[in-house]
Amino acid sequence: MAVYVAQTRDDITDTQLQDILTRLRQVPAKATTRRTRTGFLIVTWAETGPLLEAELARSEHLVRVLPESSSFPLAAREYRPEGSVVRVGAVPVGDGRPVIIAGPCSAETPEVLLETARAVRAAGADMLRVGVFKPRTSPYSFHGLGPDGLAMLRDARAETGLPIVTEILDVRDIDRVADAADLLQVGARNMQNFTLLTELALTGRPVLLKRGLSATVHEWLNAAEYLLAHGNDHVILCERGIRTFERATRNTLDLNAVPVVKHLSHLPILVDPSHGTGATRYVPPMSAAALAAGADGVIVEVHPRPAQALSDGDQSLDLPEFARLATNLRAIGEALGRGRVAAEPELVELA
Amino acid sequence: MAVYVAQTRDDITDTQLQDILTRLRQVPAKATTRRTRTGFLIVTWAETGPLLEAELARSEHLVRVLPESSSFPLAAREYRPEGSVVRVGAVPVGDGRPVIIAGPCSAETPEVLLETARAVRAAGADMLRVGVFKPRTSPYSFHGLGPDGLAMLRDARAETGLPIVTEILDVRDIDRVADAADLLQVGARNMQNFTLLTELALTGRPVLLKRGLSATVHEWLNAAEYLLAHGNDHVILCERGIRTFERATRNTLDLNAVPVVKHLSHLPILVDPSHGTGATRYVPPMSAAALAAGADGVIVEVHPRPAQALSDGDQSLDLPEFARLATNLRAIGEALGRGRVAAEPELVELA
Amino acid sequence: MAVYVAQTRDDITDTQLQDILTRLRQVPAKATTRRTRTGFLIVTWAETGPLLEAELARSEHLVRVLPESSSFPLAAREYRPEGSVVRVGAVPVGDGRPVIIAGPCSAETPEVLLETARAVRAAGADMLRVGVFKPRTSPYSFHGLGPDGLAMLRDARAETGLPIVTEILDVRDIDRVADAADLLQVGARNMQNFTLLTELALTGRPVLLKRGLSATVHEWLNAAEYLLAHGNDHVILCERGIRTFERATRNTLDLNAVPVVKHLSHLPILVDPSHGTGATRYVPPMSAAALAAGADGVIVEVHPRPAQALSDGDQSLDLPEFARLATNLRAIGEALGRGRVAAEPELVELA
Amino acid sequence: MAVYVAQTRDDITDTQLQDILTRLRQVPAKATTRRTRTGFLIVTWAETGPLLEAELARSEHLVRVLPESSSFPLAAREYRPEGSVVRVGAVPVGDGRPVIIAGPCSAETPEVLLETARAVRAAGADMLRVGVFKPRTSPYSFHGLGPDGLAMLRDARAETGLPIVTEILDVRDIDRVADAADLLQVGARNMQNFTLLTELALTGRPVLLKRGLSATVHEWLNAAEYLLAHGNDHVILCERGIRTFERATRNTLDLNAVPVVKHLSHLPILVDPSHGTGATRYVPPMSAAALAAGADGVIVEVHPRPAQALSDGDQSLDLPEFARLATNLRAIGEALGRGRVAAEPELVELA
Repeated sequence: MAVYVAQTRDDITDTQLQDILTRLRQVPAKATTRRTRTGFLIVTWAETGPLLEAELARSEHLVRVLPESSSFPLAAREYRPEGSVVRVGAVPVGDGRPVIIAGPCSAETPEVLLETARAVRAAGADMLRVGVFKPRTSPYSFHGLGPDGLAMLRDARAETGLPIVTEILDVRDIDRVADAADLLQVGARNMQNFTLLTELALTGRPVLLKRGLSATVHEWLNAAEYLLAHGNDHVILCERGIRTFERATRNTLDLNAVPVVKHLSHLPILVDPSHGTGATRYVPPMSAAALAAGADGVIVEVHPRPAQALSDGDQSLDLPEFARLATNLRAIGEALGRGRVAAEPELVELA
Repeated sequence: MAVYVAQTRDDITDTQLQDILTRLRQVPAKATTRRTRTGFLIVTWAETGPLLEAELARSEHLVRVLPESSSFPLAAREYRPEGSVVRVGAVPVGDGRPVIIAGPCSAETPEVLLETARAVRAAGADMLRVGVFKPRTSPYSFHGLGPDGLAMLRDARAETGLPIVTEILDVRDIDRVADAADLLQVGARNMQNFTLLTELALTGRPVLLKRGLSATVHEWLNAAEYLLAHGNDHVILCERGIRTFERATRNTLDLNAVPVVKHLSHLPILVDPSHGTGATRYVPPMSAAALAAGADGVIVEVHPRPAQALSDGDQSLDLPEFARLATNLRAIGEALGRGRVAAEPELVELA
Repeated sequence: MAVYVAQTRDDITDTQLQDILTRLRQVPAKATTRRTRTGFLIVTWAETGPLLEAELARSEHLVRVLPESSSFPLAAREYRPEGSVVRVGAVPVGDGRPVIIAGPCSAETPEVLLETARAVRAAGADMLRVGVFKPRTSPYSFHGLGPDGLAMLRDARAETGLPIVTEILDVRDIDRVADAADLLQVGARNMQNFTLLTELALTGRPVLLKRGLSATVHEWLNAAEYLLAHGNDHVILCERGIRTFERATRNTLDLNAVPVVKHLSHLPILVDPSHGTGATRYVPPMSAAALAAGADGVIVEVHPRPAQALSDGDQSLDLPEFARLATNLRAIGEALGRGRVAAEPELVELA
Repeated sequence: MAVYVAQTRDDITDTQLQDILTRLRQVPAKATTRRTRTGFLIVTWAETGPLLEAELARSEHLVRVLPESSSFPLAAREYRPEGSVVRVGAVPVGDGRPVIIAGPCSAETPEVLLETARAVRAAGADMLRVGVFKPRTSPYSFHGLGPDGLAMLRDARAETGLPIVTEILDVRDIDRVADAADLLQVGARNMQNFTLLTELALTGRPVLLKRGLSATVHEWLNAAEYLLAHGNDHVILCERGIRTFERATRNTLDLNAVPVVKHLSHLPILVDPSHGTGATRYVPPMSAAALAAGADGVIVEVHPRPAQALSDGDQSLDLPEFARLATNLRAIGEALGRGRVAAEPELVELA
């Protein structure tokens, strides 16, 4: 494959831009565009280079055309050095202030979900996480309430105002999940479900992309690039532990990945210490470590009565534990000078 | 979740069986059945045990009801000690004789595919492997010909008579792929795409389930159990290398998995030394090792001109290399006493 | 093997204790003792249990005898719930205040070492790390100055007063290294060099035990137990990254190990983000994360001119970078409430 | 470090060669030599290149001087394309015929060891493996009989004529172990115990170098290079399984390593399926697979009564199981055309 990045003239008109895109499609090549301060950026790719290069050379409206060597040009830090801020509802992610997302592994009953939602909001959570479609190793395990659970999500949002984060497994569920949730999660097992990524990109909704269990950081950023290449810049990454030989914890939380992602990419990154350790007692220290490593926030599992949770009880905080954690994380955020930034960086708009 | 395995009386009627299943659905529980030599086996599961156990205790047509501790009762060796034989077209997999599957990573042109198909058939291949939907790390890589390539598969089958093995990525493609191929492959990245597994189960078509890059053998057998629990016993496993720290090979081919799977499960298992090593020169010795470890066959990448292949050229054999390999593998199969078994084990029929 | 833990009466005399130990040796069993607030603790082990158990049952001076199921009874948190403080020279490790150890990978020249030592002391380092025996993958690499470098270590200590941390590779070097250094480091490659551990135990000197590249936390604590079982409680652990599939960093720093070790053991634990990441730019955020995770300190590589370092230049901080890091870590330590504790916990003395 | 490989003139005299080596030592550089068909090969290395290069350029007896880029020039296949044969007693390893080494994990009693030795010899074993120094994770485990066990090894050799393979842990034991054994094993935990490797090199005795639990093939060949660079070419490699996330087997036997080592190096390679799987039932298929992959032989644990073995009983074959395995492996060796080669390749002599 040949990939090129081109910059248009500042004064290009919509018609001229559309004309370029039409001709690229005839190469045939694919393309995605981004408005910049001085025109538009075009990322375009085709099976072979010569025809594409010739087409790009032909246009008088392009001021710079470069072959792209990175496999994730749109996710790369170079493309947006100041870093991206992704808004989920009214909550900005990536603006400096640590974001706290909390909630139960699974929706169980409306009462338990509302009890949890109210408590985590009171303790300072920014969003509510909750699963209704649960990918489980065994076909005989609890797989979540499914579509029936979506109403609970809508109710919890209406009641608390918290944006909802939930996992999506099946492209055929996108519309109804997008109706009930604000941040659509792609789980670790689906990080390279490219069909799902491409369809989610088309929704334009914010996506939380968890790292695969044995994905390298480069593969993860390539998966993010699927979303960006198909037009959706609202991508938040989430480190949740990788698979190693170590057995004292459920996974090995790779906090190295936080500064590595910050170096390589402009995308915000959260950390999930609940799955990353698998044990409640390790969640508070690893949440603090995540912020100190530079993460934009944490996402933790909380249940009013973990011992009765239908899934992941061993790694869920109870309500008072979460309240203490939230207080401590705010203090650490302040100690790290991580208040919300005064003026947010100007967002680059989708074309 | 509570899982039970029940055995019906030998003389149970269809009506009586359907009646049991209807009442299980009302618990509510799910169930799958298998005809055995002495009636039917019922595997049934529900969120909580007491109601299900009470329902099972009520039926006079059940002669044995046991709580199931294994997470893969249908894939377990205990369930079918003699081993399963899965037929793909006219080719039995699992009957002792090593099966050889060969072909290009991707369909490129009708001419190249036919050239390859004829050559591998002449050299003794049992099936043709070829991809039209390619999962690729980067959105800017060649992703296969897509639906347009399916006609080539039908033509290659018509021309050579070889059953076709091809990967499927999207549930929405199942019908058209099932029309062009005989063995539907679930790739490593999709081993835990439970949506895809469940939908493939419903087709009743043979499925080749590759091991995930960091999946344990138990997780792999659980993924197979998704297919079996939803009614499809025509499952062939494929070891294709796992992810480790070693960098001299693309993956670490885990041949331990072959005798482990043979011990734990009745399902046939193939080995893919092309992806398992990533280098043509290592394919012949590791193919031989796979058979010696007890694999039911190998699946290897072959291209008439590997240097020109659009993908995976570094690990593809050329046509003379494949012909030599096939000859050697037949010799090793004979040395191991692995001719086709005279009388095949009686297949347990789906209910 | 059978392992027992016995507690003596409070008023046991030295003669009576020696008598017990003599009889244990005749079982034959091995034993190690620790003075406690109410007598002595005896850990004793033999090939088979019955004779040992009978011998223990015979003594009137033992008030409690229990079979030990943990493989690291002396390293276990239960044995000393308040945590251990290990003194290296005048520097306590494990008392709450984060310790900072810094210095070059290798001793190169007296001038460079002194320049570094003075600078890191001025910036607030508590100890000086420096290698003279370097384990290197290749026989053709620089292996350190060897014995000739030890004089430089003595000079740096005399000049700056900083305790010296250096690695030891060969049991035959113990005496001369112990003469020049205060904290003897067992490197990752030697974590299970049980000969070296046993001989180091006999010196009674503080030991810094790095985690092996693919050692589990349990294996690591077992390695520490070798030191304790042979009479040396002055053990400090050091997480330095494990080996995984990830290639964006030299190793995967496993900060999960910090709270896991704190939960399982009373031993202090440091973190080495230089080897744990392999890149200078990732050292500051991962140092902060280490403290936030609960580590008792960090050990980092510093060189006045990293580009000219004979080894590990890519992961060494220069002097201003270290000064900034030290300032930040002190601030984080204070934010975490990690000043030096007012009254140190009473140390359990070696018998 | 700078490394150079130089070839002397065919007619160089001993005095002239010694003169070159003396001058190299004065650079200062280190050097090792090998006699070849046309003179001597000199591998020499120093901290910096220019002085060494100048010294090499000065000599009129050198016909070719090349900077060496490989980190293991002496272990590399290029150095000896025909492959090395290492003799252990009268047994050649690497000449094509598969070698079978068998015996108990540990020496326990003279009677059990002799019973095992006679049985494995009768079944066709080429050497006897047996441990007296056992590296164990826990200080409270059975560590072997130690020096007292060495007499049993001498007796077993005298009685059966089988060469003895045993592990050595401590440089201070080299002389007495070398007196009792023929092939000195460096275990996985000591693969990078460079002190031990260097001292073993000086003995000139054959060494069996096991791969470290998480060592890459390149690191392993570098460890072998330590032996060769210090003058000992009698090195046999042994793959024994690496550490991965998989839990169904004790380790993941990496048979890919066999053809990779054969491609990169001239050294013989054995496979240890006992440690590589951890379960008796998997030893026969993985032994066969090892030979099919191209290994020069296998080393397996055998005990007359595995259930009573003091260590590794779970992975030991009993005597009839071993006899069957040996018969099968001979058959597979013949099927693979792996009889002993008629004329052995001329061994390159140590200078």
